[in-house]
Amino acid sequence: MDEQAHRPPSDSYVQSFARGLSVIRAFGPQRPRMTLTEVAAATGLTRAGARRILLTLVQLGYVEADERRFALTPRILELGYAYLSATPLWDLALPYMEEVAETTRESCSVSVLDGTDIVYILRLSTHKVMTINLAVGSRLPAWATSMGRVLLAGLPEPEQDRLLDASQIQAYTPSTLTDRTALKRALAEVRAQGYACVVQELEPGLQSVAVPIVDRSGRVTGAMNVSGHANRYSREQMLDAFLPPLRRAAGHINQALQRR
Amino acid sequence: MDEQAHRPPSDSYVQSFARGLSVIRAFGPQRPRMTLTEVAAATGLTRAGARRILLTLVQLGYVEADERRFALTPRILELGYAYLSATPLWDLALPYMEEVAETTRESCSVSVLDGTDIVYILRLSTHKVMTINLAVGSRLPAWATSMGRVLLAGLPEPEQDRLLDASQIQAYTPSTLTDRTALKRALAEVRAQGYACVVQELEPGLQSVAVPIVDRSGRVTGAMNVSGHANRYSREQMLDAFLPPLRRAAGHINQALQRR
Repeated sequence: MDEQAHRPPSDSYVQSFARGLSVIRAFGPQRPRMTLTEVAAATGLTRAGARRILLTLVQLGYVEADERRFALTPRILELGYAYLSATPLWDLALPYMEEVAETTRESCSVSVLDGTDIVYILRLSTHKVMTINLAVGSRLPAWATSMGRVLLAGLPEPEQDRLLDASQIQAYTPSTLTDRTALKRALAEVRAQGYACVVQELEPGLQSVAVPIVDRSGRVTGAMNVSGHANRYSREQMLDAFLPPLRRAAGHINQALQRR
Repeated sequence: MDEQAHRPPSDSYVQSFARGLSVIRAFGPQRPRMTLTEVAAATGLTRAGARRILLTLVQLGYVEADERRFALTPRILELGYAYLSATPLWDLALPYMEEVAETTRESCSVSVLDGTDIVYILRLSTHKVMTINLAVGSRLPAWATSMGRVLLAGLPEPEQDRLLDASQIQAYTPSTLTDRTALKRALAEVRAQGYACVVQELEPGLQSVAVPIVDRSGRVTGAMNVSGHANRYSREQMLDAFLPPLRRAAGHINQALQRR
């Protein structure tokens, strides 16, 4: 075997790849099209470095350029698609989520943990009721969300503590649980009862219930929730309305994951 | 300004970035987790090269490794999210698509052109009727689909010809339009009538109607369709049922794009 195979990648190699990806990430709703100068400012790269990466991305078909400005192309989506289509949960969950969304007439989502965040991998809504627009690939802090608490509650204690230590815990609303002891107690409750319920902790008016999705090895591999507006249901009404369809759907998904 | 800024990126730089992206793309439903040897085989890289890129991706949080196998992490989704959230069409279209899906009880999608392919950027379904599972980021050949024909019909003639030349035209079903002259005539019709209707050309049983989405500059920037099963509607019934809600929704989306 080649000698080089035993060496870890050099910093410069990792860095140049990381810079390329940081240029991709710099685009977004506030910056859909950028000049070279804007890309350099957004990424902290020199103009020369930004130019080199942009031209590379253009050559690979991930970025297009008009006279002076650069924009991402839809080819970028194939990277995320590679992840989604390789995730068994992703295609298994959809039909069961449709049932949940139709039964509850609220939006139903599935997310997974990535560091201290949850990342949405599926979202279905039958009626548009919420002002927040959450899409596949969007992220929220795990500790403050129902799906995140389900995912954190499924981790071994040391890992849970490590992630809570790394989280930026702050009061998004007057109801946000910010006390570490109270959060740990909430996670123990979630683990014991098999669901998490979060009422107006992340955003006023927003509440949700989440249940775990468990893979063949018994690991909590994802979480599924239903979210709705707090003025439509009390906490108890929400649990009555959302928990049974969520548990039924999670049961089907867990069984399907076992068979994979 | 730095001398280097005037030089195009070196082949080795472009190549290493391209290889990193090819490793990401190598993962998928058939290969959700791969050993080093499998990644090398799937990408045509040497083991040493594949290892270097995998360790880079692990270091950046885009790939995780258990004992011997590598898998993508959900962090990959942030790259596609950068594109989607930077695309005005993407968040504008959703509420109008919901109306179309509810009215027709069929799935409603929006896609854009990427080379000779269409790429799905939005897909909504209220009832699961189709066996094909199309998701955001998935691709289909433009020439054989209703959305693709709307997008091709919106291009200047030379560009349209260039893309048809580059397309792999083949008979997916006995109904597939494979003759170049017939295809060109179909595109001229689509342009004249303002919609495309494709019946069982890509897959037996699948039919769809698509309309153009036009940006501020008058360019066809996307296409929206409704697809359904051919045994549920004749071609005429499908046009009667799908075209009015599609045109209404496209009208709203086009107006909203004008205001951006």
